[in-house]
Amino acid sequence: MTTDLTRFAHRIFQAQPFSMFLGAELTAVGPDSAEIRVVNRPEIQQQHGFVHGGVLSYLADNALTFAGGLALGGDALTAEYKINYVRPAVGDLVVARAEATATTRRQAVCQCSVYVVSEQGEEHLVAVAQGTIVRAGGQED
Amino acid sequence: MTTDLTRFAHRIFQAQPFSMFLGAELTAVGPDSAEIRVVNRPEIQQQHGFVHGGVLSYLADNALTFAGGLALGGDALTAEYKINYVRPAVGDLVVARAEATATTRRQAVCQCSVYVVSEQGEEHLVAVAQGTIVRAGGQED
Amino acid sequence: MTTDLTRFAHRIFQAQPFSMFLGAELTAVGPDSAEIRVVNRPEIQQQHGFVHGGVLSYLADNALTFAGGLALGGDALTAEYKINYVRPAVGDLVVARAEATATTRRQAVCQCSVYVVSEQGEEHLVAVAQGTIVRAGGQED
Amino acid sequence: MTTDLTRFAHRIFQAQPFSMFLGAELTAVGPDSAEIRVVNRPEIQQQHGFVHGGVLSYLADNALTFAGGLALGGDALTAEYKINYVRPAVGDLVVARAEATATTRRQAVCQCSVYVVSEQGEEHLVAVAQGTIVRAGGQED
Repeated sequence: MTTDLTRFAHRIFQAQPFSMFLGAELTAVGPDSAEIRVVNRPEIQQQHGFVHGGVLSYLADNALTFAGGLALGGDALTAEYKINYVRPAVGDLVVARAEATATTRRQAVCQCSVYVVSEQGEEHLVAVAQGTIVRAGGQED
Repeated sequence: MTTDLTRFAHRIFQAQPFSMFLGAELTAVGPDSAEIRVVNRPEIQQQHGFVHGGVLSYLADNALTFAGGLALGGDALTAEYKINYVRPAVGDLVVARAEATATTRRQAVCQCSVYVVSEQGEEHLVAVAQGTIVRAGGQED
Repeated sequence: MTTDLTRFAHRIFQAQPFSMFLGAELTAVGPDSAEIRVVNRPEIQQQHGFVHGGVLSYLADNALTFAGGLALGGDALTAEYKINYVRPAVGDLVVARAEATATTRRQAVCQCSVYVVSEQGEEHLVAVAQGTIVRAGGQED
Repeated sequence: MTTDLTRFAHRIFQAQPFSMFLGAELTAVGPDSAEIRVVNRPEIQQQHGFVHGGVLSYLADNALTFAGGLALGGDALTAEYKINYVRPAVGDLVVARAEATATTRRQAVCQCSVYVVSEQGEEHLVAVAQGTIVRAGGQED
């Protein structure tokens, strides 16, 4: 992957006001993969003190988009995805890792795992997601 | 639907720090339906000025949970859902309306439509979602 | 909808060996909708005598494809879909009805409900599905 | 995994008339995984000579069910799943491999990859799926 594409990914991420609002970080990118993190804090939780499903969804959605965009080589968007929550999200940190599983000219089918990380660095799977990423402009035109 | 259940739904919603952080409102509840709104503002957008998919996902996820919880008659959580984004979300307001399509003792399969609303009050569909809501405690035990 | 498109839909359906093998019928088509039926018989069942989920999936998948193809105006294929089974499928007949919910130049997001029909003509919902249909050629090129 | 559970899985599979009708075989089972195969032939194809999506769906659905049932330790059923088709299915054989990704007392979230196999034994990914498997009786009661 060219350094240009890495730089492009980080520039796009920093240009997402919602990602900044959540305090999310794009912590790793590869030729067809991406990792996004957010530190747990009260504002991102639901009524039982778990990280809200909407935050896990944001992480999965955005990690899928970046993995797919990197695989497709440019600006991209999530056309659709599904997510299964597998355990309550309790931990210091939430990390989503996505990769493109099958890439064609026009779309990338990507998969994502979302983990909570404890203070001791132990990771526990909290959600898995699968979706379709298309080149930007591709969904609507 | 008992007024108690309506009150319970509003109390749960107000107890979600993430919903408060986003400025979301639970604007309608029925025996098996719920509507959640959020006013558009820069902090919930992505790099092109559209409402971020993560916000649409939050709205769908949470509206599905409340519709399912109301249908099931108590505290509930989204076990899984899928969402299709159908057009860029541009508008003054975003509204998610969900309803339970099929309810059994233990779960409710729910469907949700997410709209943007223009200044003139016109609604445009931006996403559709479908998922499974289970009684709280049901997913993990 | 032109009669040509109706005729085209029926011709495509008849050209699907798997649909013929299952004894399925394309029983209704509209400008953005389709209905497919199959008569229940032992060969399409699973170990408990219910219609096999694979048959409900076939019906949903194919009804989604035809609804989307009709909305898009030509040959189409299902890029992805999700299905929720909501009750065991017991009945004389299984009917899937799909319609395009949001159509753009390149894709149609479609939704489908699958019913069993009793001898008395009563319909019971057994599954709901949602998916993306793209123009043929669109997924791979 | 006890041999009893292996035997149970094969007995259930053989008791599925639809699997027999399709000529499918349960070719491998593990403590939380399953593999199902079907030899390609005209009856399972669609109008372009590719294996019909409904057959890929059957394979994914059933492989998910068996993987989940093995992980849960008994009779199980697919509550829901989603599938992405990633390339036309052309080949001598179609193979679906599923495994349980996250298992709790009541459900297993499973993932599945479907491949076509050429005469030379080369495998190509044609679909990926993800779904929820619940203990039999669990969905409806």
